[in-house]
Amino acid sequence: MNELVNARLELFPITATIEGDDQNEWLSIDKIRVSELAQKYKTPLYIYDRATLDDAVQQYNAALKELYPGDSGITYAGKAYLSLAIAQWAGQNNLWLDCTGVGELEIAQKANLSKSVILVHGVNKSFEDLNAAIQKAGTIVVDNLTELTRLSDLAKNQVDHLPDLWLRLRPGMAVDTHGYTQTGQVESKFGMSVDEIKQAVKICLDSNLPLTGLHFHLGSHFHELAPLEPAIETTLDLLKEIKTNSGWEAKTICTGGGWGIAYHEDNLPHPSVKKYVQFISEHLINGCRNRQLDLPKLQVEPGRSLVARAGVAIYRVGAVKDSGIRQWTLVDGGMADNIRPALYGAKYSALPLEGIDRHFLSRTWIAGPYCESSDVLIEDLPMPNLQPDEYIAVPASGAYHISMSGNYNGARRPAVLWIDRGKVQLVQRRESLEELYQRDLPL
Amino acid sequence: MNELVNARLELFPITATIEGDDQNEWLSIDKIRVSELAQKYKTPLYIYDRATLDDAVQQYNAALKELYPGDSGITYAGKAYLSLAIAQWAGQNNLWLDCTGVGELEIAQKANLSKSVILVHGVNKSFEDLNAAIQKAGTIVVDNLTELTRLSDLAKNQVDHLPDLWLRLRPGMAVDTHGYTQTGQVESKFGMSVDEIKQAVKICLDSNLPLTGLHFHLGSHFHELAPLEPAIETTLDLLKEIKTNSGWEAKTICTGGGWGIAYHEDNLPHPSVKKYVQFISEHLINGCRNRQLDLPKLQVEPGRSLVARAGVAIYRVGAVKDSGIRQWTLVDGGMADNIRPALYGAKYSALPLEGIDRHFLSRTWIAGPYCESSDVLIEDLPMPNLQPDEYIAVPASGAYHISMSGNYNGARRPAVLWIDRGKVQLVQRRESLEELYQRDLPL
Repeated sequence: MNELVNARLELFPITATIEGDDQNEWLSIDKIRVSELAQKYKTPLYIYDRATLDDAVQQYNAALKELYPGDSGITYAGKAYLSLAIAQWAGQNNLWLDCTGVGELEIAQKANLSKSVILVHGVNKSFEDLNAAIQKAGTIVVDNLTELTRLSDLAKNQVDHLPDLWLRLRPGMAVDTHGYTQTGQVESKFGMSVDEIKQAVKICLDSNLPLTGLHFHLGSHFHELAPLEPAIETTLDLLKEIKTNSGWEAKTICTGGGWGIAYHEDNLPHPSVKKYVQFISEHLINGCRNRQLDLPKLQVEPGRSLVARAGVAIYRVGAVKDSGIRQWTLVDGGMADNIRPALYGAKYSALPLEGIDRHFLSRTWIAGPYCESSDVLIEDLPMPNLQPDEYIAVPASGAYHISMSGNYNGARRPAVLWIDRGKVQLVQRRESLEELYQRDLPL
Repeated sequence: MNELVNARLELFPITATIEGDDQNEWLSIDKIRVSELAQKYKTPLYIYDRATLDDAVQQYNAALKELYPGDSGITYAGKAYLSLAIAQWAGQNNLWLDCTGVGELEIAQKANLSKSVILVHGVNKSFEDLNAAIQKAGTIVVDNLTELTRLSDLAKNQVDHLPDLWLRLRPGMAVDTHGYTQTGQVESKFGMSVDEIKQAVKICLDSNLPLTGLHFHLGSHFHELAPLEPAIETTLDLLKEIKTNSGWEAKTICTGGGWGIAYHEDNLPHPSVKKYVQFISEHLINGCRNRQLDLPKLQVEPGRSLVARAGVAIYRVGAVKDSGIRQWTLVDGGMADNIRPALYGAKYSALPLEGIDRHFLSRTWIAGPYCESSDVLIEDLPMPNLQPDEYIAVPASGAYHISMSGNYNGARRPAVLWIDRGKVQLVQRRESLEELYQRDLPL
């Protein structure tokens, strides 16, 4: 097998293999030939592999158990990809679920998750969001002082039932990622400064609100651990000062999520979850010891690093065009189901589903059918010469594709399959033509 | 009234006025106080003003009538914003409707548009798209030779019923706009080169396909006319050569769309539709005369310049935060309903709905509620000090907002109102919570 194929296979779910004989090699996931799924369910098609999802959870659990002597837990960041199935999966794996606002809360409730595992985030929660959070969630992460006042007002007559509150700290340092996904830097819209946190703690204590934790999140899809150190130090300095002044101690510290993954063979090997957990654990353990603070519960909040690798996007090739300068491979999905290349300049890879070990020579630009030049999925990728009507698979498609998808140019949201120990199940059906105008009223 | 307010009012629909008395000034559209609509229909809310839509059509019609002696017509580019109401409006104004693929075709059909006014675009039309186009459209714009072959195969038994075919030329020059919205340059994924067009004409003539026109489109949201000249010259040189060699003449030339609009007070005065039509007309008239070609029908294909100014987005302010470096005004919509700032760096403006003539001092960053740092609607805008729970209006929101919208973070698509001579009608209801998981199946 050609080296590029072997490297790219690493980006796919852990159950992905290349099967076949002298005549043909094809991609399988959990022993299921993917081209047969594409033919049956049509394209664009998304596939999630449960074994890969479970393995990612196991990596976090094992690292936390080995490296962090205190209590710990994992919150799945639902914004990466939320459906009934993935919410149920989170419940089955004893994960908490992070929901942003009333929409995601509705899905969590529909999946029958226990209230205690639902956590609510949001930089600008509406009254509707806050009311739903009070009814349905076990924890609310308070973003700002205005929200705390609203929450305190809403809770006046139901303090017994108020969920646990955590405060979101803006620690003031940036991680090295796309500017769009940095969230912890000093000018960020998210969270509270150190001084605001002190005010918020005082308000909570004065009003007897159930304040139990502190949260920060530095950004999404970073690969360097270093900025986590000053963020943890800032958090612990703050907690020490609060403890000294008021006696309040955080039961839980949540260090957010954002650990990066491999989208392209150039990003391999996969970033180590163990190293990530180890870095946080050591700095928390040492930091607490140095300040005579009790070790809090450590909650981590991964989204992408739990689900991205489990997801694969399948497209069908339409026309292959040569513009003289570039070869274009036009496929039947693109920016409507995956906005990440256009929005962040994200760099993906791909494999054909059949005839995988063909000669890789041509560099092709893989683009979608939408009427916009930003609708390019992958630029300048070495591939075999693809033919109209064959299928390709794009790995690492499990996070921030479907959750950011839309109906541009009348696109319908793709069908989503779930593979679990050799069994295939439809977990999101393809959007229908009727659904494109179900909200419309005639003149 | 402060000068900034007067300038910004220019960006709103033509019926927008500031009403009020000594105590308070409020924004009205067609004499309707917008804050009352916001209270009744909730936010985020989109409003389209029919008088502004009709006026935009009238500007194109008047210019074509005055400046172009041949036949002419207008195609509304549905990708800018498509709903049952706007499709009906297009029909009532004798516009053609450009649909991309089977999804938009379904909406056009649901709006009872006549087949003859439906035109189909698309760089990678699927078999499903092509079949739907053959059934439902009056004109298909053929993007590439693979598609032409497919179309010819599909049409073998129904040539009598085949829609008119136009060929899409990639003329090889770029307009000055965001790279994502340039479409005519030589390396673009769209259309055919001059040589491919010659091949396509030969195939059409040999197979007796109903070829009637030639189309090009240089890009979206440009302000400089100059690149249209070489595009028209290239087109006419090609048509002259084809006429000489085969006798075929294009009945229609479509010069695409893409004329820019004013999003921000710095973009005023509004780009002139008359100048745009005049430039195209003069170059077509002179070019045809110099080459002894009959003057073809001129079809123009505006999207944004017909609908952008007619649309206004209304948001409610949640928290106002000071990060020390920036003041953040957090509102209840953002990248889920308007991805343009994040995707293209688009620069918008805004006004409060009430108390408009307050002192404008502070520069604020207006951001949405979504868990992402790219969710910033407007950076660093001079505004009055806004208060939680008041409303703001963002003008020029009629194009490429709703059509590119999605459900990120569980967002529901906003309600859309239609104002026609003082009457308010709901034309798209707000998406429901249930609709967020209607495609989902449990594990």
